[in-house]
Amino acid sequence: QWTLMDWKPRRPDMLADAFGLGKIIENGLVYRQNFSIRSYEIGADQTASIETLMNHLQETALNHVKCAGLLGNGFGSTPEMSKKNLIWVVTKMQVLVEHYPSWGDIIEVDTWAAASGKNGMRRDWHVRDSQTGQTIMRASSNWVMMNKNTRRLSKFPEEVRAELEPYFMDRVPVIDDDNRKLPKLDDDTADHVRKGLTPRWSDLDVNQHVNNVKYIGWILESAPISILESHELASMTLEYRRECGRDSVLQSLTSVSNDCTDGSAELPIECQHLLRLEGGPEIVKGQTEWRPKKRAPFPVGSP
Amino acid sequence: QWTLMDWKPRRPDMLADAFGLGKIIENGLVYRQNFSIRSYEIGADQTASIETLMNHLQETALNHVKCAGLLGNGFGSTPEMSKKNLIWVVTKMQVLVEHYPSWGDIIEVDTWAAASGKNGMRRDWHVRDSQTGQTIMRASSNWVMMNKNTRRLSKFPEEVRAELEPYFMDRVPVIDDDNRKLPKLDDDTADHVRKGLTPRWSDLDVNQHVNNVKYIGWILESAPISILESHELASMTLEYRRECGRDSVLQSLTSVSNDCTDGSAELPIECQHLLRLEGGPEIVKGQTEWRPKKRAPFPVGSP
Repeated sequence: QWTLMDWKPRRPDMLADAFGLGKIIENGLVYRQNFSIRSYEIGADQTASIETLMNHLQETALNHVKCAGLLGNGFGSTPEMSKKNLIWVVTKMQVLVEHYPSWGDIIEVDTWAAASGKNGMRRDWHVRDSQTGQTIMRASSNWVMMNKNTRRLSKFPEEVRAELEPYFMDRVPVIDDDNRKLPKLDDDTADHVRKGLTPRWSDLDVNQHVNNVKYIGWILESAPISILESHELASMTLEYRRECGRDSVLQSLTSVSNDCTDGSAELPIECQHLLRLEGGPEIVKGQTEWRPKKRAPFPVGSP
Repeated sequence: QWTLMDWKPRRPDMLADAFGLGKIIENGLVYRQNFSIRSYEIGADQTASIETLMNHLQETALNHVKCAGLLGNGFGSTPEMSKKNLIWVVTKMQVLVEHYPSWGDIIEVDTWAAASGKNGMRRDWHVRDSQTGQTIMRASSNWVMMNKNTRRLSKFPEEVRAELEPYFMDRVPVIDDDNRKLPKLDDDTADHVRKGLTPRWSDLDVNQHVNNVKYIGWILESAPISILESHELASMTLEYRRECGRDSVLQSLTSVSNDCTDGSAELPIECQHLLRLEGGPEIVKGQTEWRPKKRAPFPVGSP
């Protein structure tokens, strides 16, 4: 046993790697990785943005696959998937955030996979403050396979199931699946519309497509800034309908159920969201819930 | 002495913190921190984006100040600066990138500060691949102080100099200051103009202003996508003229010196950039150099 005081690494690079990659725990079925929240991952509120937290989820999912020795050619594809030109696409993401961490906080992200229906996979995450053990967020997602060339959804090949099944955990979802159908949103029912949104070069991932985390920024683009100032995102459900490429032009629509947008509101707010192509096809449907921030975002009435 | 094999931390959180914060080396004047490149920090090229690398520079600069016990209330302000309501603003940034790291690579960032003229501070960085020692990038920046309330530039108060001088390094800049005046760029001389750029909520930092790294994305918005596809950024000089708030609407202008935009060009390219408010005032002037990518970004003419 040794303590931090006598810890003098000779090879910080190897240590970094060990830390950077996290580790498998709980009989090899849960993957755990710590993240220190960096200065550029916090926003105007001085806390980590939702995009930052979602990025950490993505990173742990990929490192889990890598650590299990299941990483093929692609971004999270297994060797059998790579052979068949299959990639993962997310169909649904549910997120509950209890508490936003600050710069320098260390969060501990646990993730595991499970079977989901006949052709899908579920992946869950539980994020805690590594000092206090307090829950920061929970998230549950559903994935299916798509052929990289035809862009059509695929059945779950037996060879892929044989690779993945040993890693599936038999555990209830970390969030109860909210099967409520998201209400229809269009120009008539939307309260706020932002048009002409286009991907920046830096929004594209290695598949030359917009990464699913980037959609969140666009969805929030049409939320009134007064809500962003007075409230924080408490939960989010996203249903992904179609992929979006680098030449897409998007529209972001939001309707607000309880529009107390004077910034002083003390009530939770629910929003419906739609991200669609200019031509009409739906990219992402979403629903968010917002709770009043604990502290006023700006000094109010100081003498 | 111990090796990675017998390294079994009991308190990964403390280790994380130790690693997350890096350490002071070379008689207390250089700060070193390692970063593992994460999946969401790479772009369409499968390598870290320039914004990612710039974010790592920012993080080490702040952690250097924190580690030296000089962090006041603000984002990098010392206690004496906080007393006087002073914040740092960057006036110039020069960057040379020799090599872009990939997902999982570990980079080692060294940073140090130096005096610069009567009222300024210089901060330099040298980034290496932690395995091979190969230089990844070098960067040199100039900073002055601004009063947070009046938004006017300030002289270098003696009390602040007393705090910082013990940490200044007497070393020539890591990049020779290129004192060439950047050429004037306007609607007539620009080859490409992007209008109507607005900050997203997530672009704002804790000072409710657009963080200087975000400008880089906007500057590249007006660079032709064919250059981004066929070339990689080799060097960049940015001169910051004015700050930009959350209600600003910006225009990004670019002129290309050697416009071989057919994607097959094997020649380096030089660009001039201007980011300005719709009304006219200049926010950032810039110059970039691009070299052909080593690999073709897309398969070309495969049978």
